Amino acid sequence: MTKILLINPNISDSVSDLIRAEAQRSAAPGTEVEVLTAPFGVAYIETRFEALIGAYAAAQLAAEHHARFDAVVVAAFGDPGLAGLREALPCPVTGLTEAALASACLLGNRFSIVAISQRIRAWYRETVQSYGLEGRLASIRGLDEPLADIGSVQGDQGERLVALAERCVAEDGADVIVLAGAPLAGLARSLKGRLPVPSVDGVSSAVKHAETLAALQPGKARLGSFAPPPVKPNKGLSPAIQALLGRAR
Amino acid sequence: MTKILLINPNISDSVSDLIRAEAQRSAAPGTEVEVLTAPFGVAYIETRFEALIGAYAAAQLAAEHHARFDAVVVAAFGDPGLAGLREALPCPVTGLTEAALASACLLGNRFSIVAISQRIRAWYRETVQSYGLEGRLASIRGLDEPLADIGSVQGDQGERLVALAERCVAEDGADVIVLAGAPLAGLARSLKGRLPVPSVDGVSSAVKHAETLAALQPGKARLGSFAPPPVKPNKGLSPAIQALLGRAR
Amino acid sequence: MTKILLINPNISDSVSDLIRAEAQRSAAPGTEVEVLTAPFGVAYIETRFEALIGAYAAAQLAAEHHARFDAVVVAAFGDPGLAGLREALPCPVTGLTEAALASACLLGNRFSIVAISQRIRAWYRETVQSYGLEGRLASIRGLDEPLADIGSVQGDQGERLVALAERCVAEDGADVIVLAGAPLAGLARSLKGRLPVPSVDGVSSAVKHAETLAALQPGKARLGSFAPPPVKPNKGLSPAIQALLGRAR
Amino acid sequence: MTKILLINPNISDSVSDLIRAEAQRSAAPGTEVEVLTAPFGVAYIETRFEALIGAYAAAQLAAEHHARFDAVVVAAFGDPGLAGLREALPCPVTGLTEAALASACLLGNRFSIVAISQRIRAWYRETVQSYGLEGRLASIRGLDEPLADIGSVQGDQGERLVALAERCVAEDGADVIVLAGAPLAGLARSLKGRLPVPSVDGVSSAVKHAETLAALQPGKARLGSFAPPPVKPNKGLSPAIQALLGRAR
Amino acid sequence: MTKILLINPNISDSVSDLIRAEAQRSAAPGTEVEVLTAPFGVAYIETRFEALIGAYAAAQLAAEHHARFDAVVVAAFGDPGLAGLREALPCPVTGLTEAALASACLLGNRFSIVAISQRIRAWYRETVQSYGLEGRLASIRGLDEPLADIGSVQGDQGERLVALAERCVAEDGADVIVLAGAPLAGLARSLKGRLPVPSVDGVSSAVKHAETLAALQPGKARLGSFAPPPVKPNKGLSPAIQALLGRAR
Amino acid sequence: MTKILLINPNISDSVSDLIRAEAQRSAAPGTEVEVLTAPFGVAYIETRFEALIGAYAAAQLAAEHHARFDAVVVAAFGDPGLAGLREALPCPVTGLTEAALASACLLGNRFSIVAISQRIRAWYRETVQSYGLEGRLASIRGLDEPLADIGSVQGDQGERLVALAERCVAEDGADVIVLAGAPLAGLARSLKGRLPVPSVDGVSSAVKHAETLAALQPGKARLGSFAPPPVKPNKGLSPAIQALLGRAR
Repeated sequence: MTKILLINPNISDSVSDLIRAEAQRSAAPGTEVEVLTAPFGVAYIETRFEALIGAYAAAQLAAEHHARFDAVVVAAFGDPGLAGLREALPCPVTGLTEAALASACLLGNRFSIVAISQRIRAWYRETVQSYGLEGRLASIRGLDEPLADIGSVQGDQGERLVALAERCVAEDGADVIVLAGAPLAGLARSLKGRLPVPSVDGVSSAVKHAETLAALQPGKARLGSFAPPPVKPNKGLSPAIQALLGRAR
Repeated sequence: MTKILLINPNISDSVSDLIRAEAQRSAAPGTEVEVLTAPFGVAYIETRFEALIGAYAAAQLAAEHHARFDAVVVAAFGDPGLAGLREALPCPVTGLTEAALASACLLGNRFSIVAISQRIRAWYRETVQSYGLEGRLASIRGLDEPLADIGSVQGDQGERLVALAERCVAEDGADVIVLAGAPLAGLARSLKGRLPVPSVDGVSSAVKHAETLAALQPGKARLGSFAPPPVKPNKGLSPAIQALLGRAR
Repeated sequence: MTKILLINPNISDSVSDLIRAEAQRSAAPGTEVEVLTAPFGVAYIETRFEALIGAYAAAQLAAEHHARFDAVVVAAFGDPGLAGLREALPCPVTGLTEAALASACLLGNRFSIVAISQRIRAWYRETVQSYGLEGRLASIRGLDEPLADIGSVQGDQGERLVALAERCVAEDGADVIVLAGAPLAGLARSLKGRLPVPSVDGVSSAVKHAETLAALQPGKARLGSFAPPPVKPNKGLSPAIQALLGRAR
Repeated sequence: MTKILLINPNISDSVSDLIRAEAQRSAAPGTEVEVLTAPFGVAYIETRFEALIGAYAAAQLAAEHHARFDAVVVAAFGDPGLAGLREALPCPVTGLTEAALASACLLGNRFSIVAISQRIRAWYRETVQSYGLEGRLASIRGLDEPLADIGSVQGDQGERLVALAERCVAEDGADVIVLAGAPLAGLARSLKGRLPVPSVDGVSSAVKHAETLAALQPGKARLGSFAPPPVKPNKGLSPAIQALLGRAR
Repeated sequence: MTKILLINPNISDSVSDLIRAEAQRSAAPGTEVEVLTAPFGVAYIETRFEALIGAYAAAQLAAEHHARFDAVVVAAFGDPGLAGLREALPCPVTGLTEAALASACLLGNRFSIVAISQRIRAWYRETVQSYGLEGRLASIRGLDEPLADIGSVQGDQGERLVALAERCVAEDGADVIVLAGAPLAGLARSLKGRLPVPSVDGVSSAVKHAETLAALQPGKARLGSFAPPPVKPNKGLSPAIQALLGRAR
Repeated sequence: MTKILLINPNISDSVSDLIRAEAQRSAAPGTEVEVLTAPFGVAYIETRFEALIGAYAAAQLAAEHHARFDAVVVAAFGDPGLAGLREALPCPVTGLTEAALASACLLGNRFSIVAISQRIRAWYRETVQSYGLEGRLASIRGLDEPLADIGSVQGDQGERLVALAERCVAEDGADVIVLAGAPLAGLARSLKGRLPVPSVDGVSSAVKHAETLAALQPGKARLGSFAPPPVKPNKGLSPAIQALLGRAR
């Protein structure tokens, strides 16, 4: 039995429902998934400032709940807090972007990202760059209208998203399409056969890669830059975060 | 039931045995693995010229046997022929390097590769570069003595390999160790707990990622650079390769 | 009169004292500096997880206090939260790393960073990479012993820091030395003439560049990726952060 | 009292007037600026060959006059001769491009350059690359008509320049606009509030950063690649350049 | 007398005729050229899979025939098998892409490639990347219609190819045009004076650079990654390839 | 008959003699070479400031003498003035670094540069970077003692230079050695067989590539960034340079 925690670092329960549904569809027999929603933050993250807030919310939830799980997923594209949690938690951690890009890199050379807004593109591009994968990024295209409802964007904007993906292939040279953002969880599955190249999303990729990491049992860093932070004075932090900070190697 | 074909593009049956054993240990319940050994080529690939031969041997085997499988793995580090087979085959294809690097990238920022010879390092470095991941490569270190027996290098050189890995962490800043090459299949598993950072190998990573790709069903490229090659005149090729070349989108 | 807020995202009052002293020494006539210390967090940041906490603490302080200032400085090397605050605040914002690297780039081609620990180097390297300046980074060298007292590291370890800087020039090809981290605030000044190449630190650089940004009055982004985040539902946030999130362009 | 020499490496007195006016507007109380015009060369630099000439002219003026100044600015975008003068002069030296890019990097992630001609773009792009900042360059856009009068381009082409800047934001993803070239000195100031993102120019940036370098007193290189050139035989050079070449560390 | 072998790794005799004609026009007095056509493979290479086949065919021909020659040229753009043959053969080896890019780099900063199809662009881009020259690649543009006859593409599509080249200069900033692919052999020569920037092709460049390598006599690698592959067991290979594999340093 | 002008941008007649001797040894039958020595400048260039002077001297000589030649070579490593002269002159131009790197790239993947001093390495590294070839640079190693006589460095330091080259192969992974600097002209030839990998020098490479460019007749740029500079007012320049500046396309 593999237990995976997916943390929605945003406050949108409707998006958590989308994440949960796709995670359950993706999970292998014997995998159990649980989704938690951030107790504070914004409806969805489009900017660096919102990501900063989401990272802290994700850290709080991860610190409190990780002990019951074999792997943790930061379930927002952009992966707020992922690198920090990888240091602090004793179990494997991944995020929607990292996982989707890992899938994309196994399916072709260059990938494009289809996203829910124009504004979000800069944050996504910087996330891709932070993973050293800008050389494989063909383009990022986003919807250009305000979203009526973050929970129903797949239905409201489905054809527009398909059209964006087709332009990524025809004009930008994409070999693979990444349908980005938790609000698009499940879209790759429901579009099966519609797109002219392989497509992946973050939630299904993260669940499968979390299962893989749990199965490979690659070990936790005792040295190097992902070992637990050195123990040192702290104050004003939640007991759960304090506990993580006190966990020396 | 997921069926995965692993192709050893070298002629060493003893290495095929190592690949098979680790693939079986790695496979999920419900996954069946089969290993085929190249009918022509060299004992193990260390150079670009040997990789050129191995690529053609891998292509021959893949063309003949792929139809019975859900995914194909090129089971030599350096992934000879992988990108070409990804175009030509209707199912997902991965390789030991690509798969091991995907695992490594999910476990830390920078990885080092521990290899079986000095000479092999240039070919590995170029393989990493071809995946656009040189920014995450901390170092490649290799054994510096001729191998007595390619099938028993793990036993003969185990402690030297551990020492190389420790230097990668201490001196090169590696967050993750990739134990490279089919002859090291299973070593990450048998060293569990010995290394100060997470470690992965190619065979177990390739099996898990092949399972993931089979499960995600991302679709096959009909357009873009991984669509099947355009149909055109050919001659002198095996019937199996001819059949692949005649498979228009 | 230019008023600059420096935010220490750590809880160490002794480090805030060092920051304040060097900021005052650096300030032009007519510049007023104020230093605030994070109400929660750790003693000093060495890791990505600690930076995540520091970013949130910095955001809280900035949200509450920015209105009285012409410019804000995130006063920890690594610049936790800087990019997010640049979006959210109406005034210019910089950080110790960004400012020190800007100075270094005006003084030579390649710079080295001298730091207070081994562990901190990965976080610094990633910070430099996030600014696209890895091509100008000659090396990062750090002290290799645990710090007795973060507030007195300059006195305790001064000669070791000089020796590290000299090796950066002789062995790594550095044209400029960046003395990194708030705990080293003022060291560049007190070492004047000791080092064989120009040296800079983060606090003095940040104060001067903040003065420059206030003087240039380059305008605030109304469009693009540094415009204020789009207004959307939020919950559980401090009134000050809520106010920032409600500030549409 | 800080004294800054700005060297116009071109022969256009009308451009020197623009430089002088903006430098005076930018200078802090207590800063004195002086502008010298090249005695030989071309009207304005658009190409590598013209830059080669301008570099030598700048070197002549710098060699003759630097002794009276605390800092020297090469006052043409493209910074002809800057790196060489940084080695040879005992005081800090900067240039319009270097200084404007330093400002831009403190205001956002990606910048675009708006320039006075199409031809000039290649030289500017290579200048940006030589500073290792191509990863932050969103685009370079230039006017596409011959200039009637280099000294009045701001007035003649003002609206076209604004339109180019707006396209850099909307189409190229620029966070900051650099208004490039000495002939545009002062334009950032006169456009205040017109552009949707922060904008900077080279002259004001260079004056402020020169003041900063004079204030920081970072020291002159005695070792490394910006130490004075090793003393060796020379002939046929002006006495002032001979004096610089004879200045051993 | 310098003897150069050009290997067409495709089965098209009509393309071999084009190669031979341009090679003879390019050869210096005292240079003798010979062109061999692959006994197996496809009509022309557009994809990675076809290149894998062409590489093996080129290796077979090179192994059998190299002994009579002073230099060998892999005469398909994309250079299938080139790096491997450089290890294995005792004489210098080059390829059409490598040689054309070397010429282009001696004529300007950025080059564009004009190609015979859309599909071929991805393979060419990866070839350029494998040479570390993506920073100098302005663009790759290709014909967008199926080719009626690979041997007569110059005549059939001449004006379209000129138009593509002109767009590379006007829109992509190319300083030099590379007319790519053996089917375009001789086009640079017949277009003399038609294009607004210098243009080169692969065959003439390869012949001249092969002459240069033969004249420079730079020596063969006895160490390093281009030394002959270490001798090891092999099976199922042609006698000629076996002989190459048995050639220890 | 092909006539090649080699311009020594330094004042050392003894180095011009070395250049002339190696150029004559390298030239094909029917090629005539002529070497001119700079009338002003320094004994040899090690720094950016000296290169700035050498560039202007090279430009003067090229402007005066180019009309009699089919190709021009800037005969100092570092290629002072090359890019500018390529714009301004009607014939092909190359330089020792550019030409040696072109040769090296045709012989292996990664090259090392062996140089005559420590100081010169920064300038060489920046030259390599300006050609976009840093990805292929294994290392730059230089002699670490002052040179007794620039004209006899090959004899005085021959064994030390060989030892440096061997370390480049063994420790840095070089596939090819570039023996750098006009003072080493001819050394690659006299060391034939001594080094374990192919080696090239700048003078012989430049002569051969100049012959190739003259033979290929690729055309002169009428558009793009290497077209002649736009005609505009100038003053104080030599008649020869004025003539170049007045040469519109």
